[in-house]
Amino acid sequence: MNETLVTVVGNVATEPETTVTATGLAVTRFRLATTTRRYDTERGAWTDGPTSFYTVRAWRTLAGNVKESVGLGEPLVVQGRLRVREDEKDGRRYVSAEIEANAIGHDLSRGVSRFTRASSTAL
Amino acid sequence: MNETLVTVVGNVATEPETTVTATGLAVTRFRLATTTRRYDTERGAWTDGPTSFYTVRAWRTLAGNVKESVGLGEPLVVQGRLRVREDEKDGRRYVSAEIEANAIGHDLSRGVSRFTRASSTAL
Amino acid sequence: MNETLVTVVGNVATEPETTVTATGLAVTRFRLATTTRRYDTERGAWTDGPTSFYTVRAWRTLAGNVKESVGLGEPLVVQGRLRVREDEKDGRRYVSAEIEANAIGHDLSRGVSRFTRASSTAL
Amino acid sequence: MNETLVTVVGNVATEPETTVTATGLAVTRFRLATTTRRYDTERGAWTDGPTSFYTVRAWRTLAGNVKESVGLGEPLVVQGRLRVREDEKDGRRYVSAEIEANAIGHDLSRGVSRFTRASSTAL
Repeated sequence: MNETLVTVVGNVATEPETTVTATGLAVTRFRLATTTRRYDTERGAWTDGPTSFYTVRAWRTLAGNVKESVGLGEPLVVQGRLRVREDEKDGRRYVSAEIEANAIGHDLSRGVSRFTRASSTAL
Repeated sequence: MNETLVTVVGNVATEPETTVTATGLAVTRFRLATTTRRYDTERGAWTDGPTSFYTVRAWRTLAGNVKESVGLGEPLVVQGRLRVREDEKDGRRYVSAEIEANAIGHDLSRGVSRFTRASSTAL
Repeated sequence: MNETLVTVVGNVATEPETTVTATGLAVTRFRLATTTRRYDTERGAWTDGPTSFYTVRAWRTLAGNVKESVGLGEPLVVQGRLRVREDEKDGRRYVSAEIEANAIGHDLSRGVSRFTRASSTAL
Repeated sequence: MNETLVTVVGNVATEPETTVTATGLAVTRFRLATTTRRYDTERGAWTDGPTSFYTVRAWRTLAGNVKESVGLGEPLVVQGRLRVREDEKDGRRYVSAEIEANAIGHDLSRGVSRFTRASSTAL
């Protein structure tokens, strides 16, 4: 309840890294960058807006398949639950926007993909 | 304004078909099926809910890349603008839920994909 | 899982009606109409697009509060789970797009509202 | 293009403040807090998850109507374009999640509202 679902279309900004939690779950983490483009009615042209960065986490089977399939700079569509996280460390406050991914796919607006229905070994 | 954006995670239910409009634009069309799964707190188990069908349309470069990459039965994540369309034909009313796709990708929850940044020839 | 969450900004197209299910739950139902508006870059002006209709259902406390607060023609923002429903009746197939509402509010883009934190009697 | 639309259901965490930009546009700004609630299948009960905070901005007519209608602590449904903003100030990096609102309404899951179709004086 009160979940904030979000879909972000963007590019992989850091190499996906997979770790295993203390309870034995695989999790893959990477940063995703998205830049809006808007039609400027005054200038009659499309222009780039600001870039937003998200930390994406994928778990279990999705973690393994993302690690195996996704590289730096590739275009993705990511759907998941959004959370704005605030942490304190050394007296400083850190804020980050995180997405716990439900589904991740290569954006076919930018290229072609060959899909194989085969999940990585679950951890 | 007032666009209804939606993201659907589901499976390709009809073979994608590509046509070219009178004005020379490529459009690829297919049906997408999605089945909800809910945790039944009384039974303490996950159960299948009803299935919803959408007609998905992809245009231009996305049309070509979907045609080249996507086959019947494959799992996708589709983001786009939703429209509930009503038509009259032979005195009957037909309703369909259509998505004009912004982004389409193979769902890496269900398998692995190999991506190549290379768009099909634009029509 | 695989829920399709959607938010629709539109107008109430039928008077909200409240009924009570066999199991004693209140449910309020109405139709919601939304019309897209797009900037036509060729004409340099905003134009109306097609109108989509949704059947919205609200349950329990939300059902009572909607019945008490919402009238025909009023502008709303509705968030909920989308389902495309197909039924057969007298040999004909009927399709409708339904939203099981999580949250409903009067759209403050179109007017002002006075809110009272007071739920209707739960059924 | 590449807009990230999001809908957040939460509570007003700071008193809405309205200012006027150098170009004469009204903008109302407030913080919105949302706390997830999840069904814990092991414990068989709902529990609170973490709270996320968003900075919401409303412009023009919506700015005036929000100022007139919305108070601290009230429950809202907010739809808009999401941006994760990073600023530098005094050698520190500040991150915030901002929503440029398309539509804002009082959440009728939590109470009743009386709506009047009457826009505030546009600035």
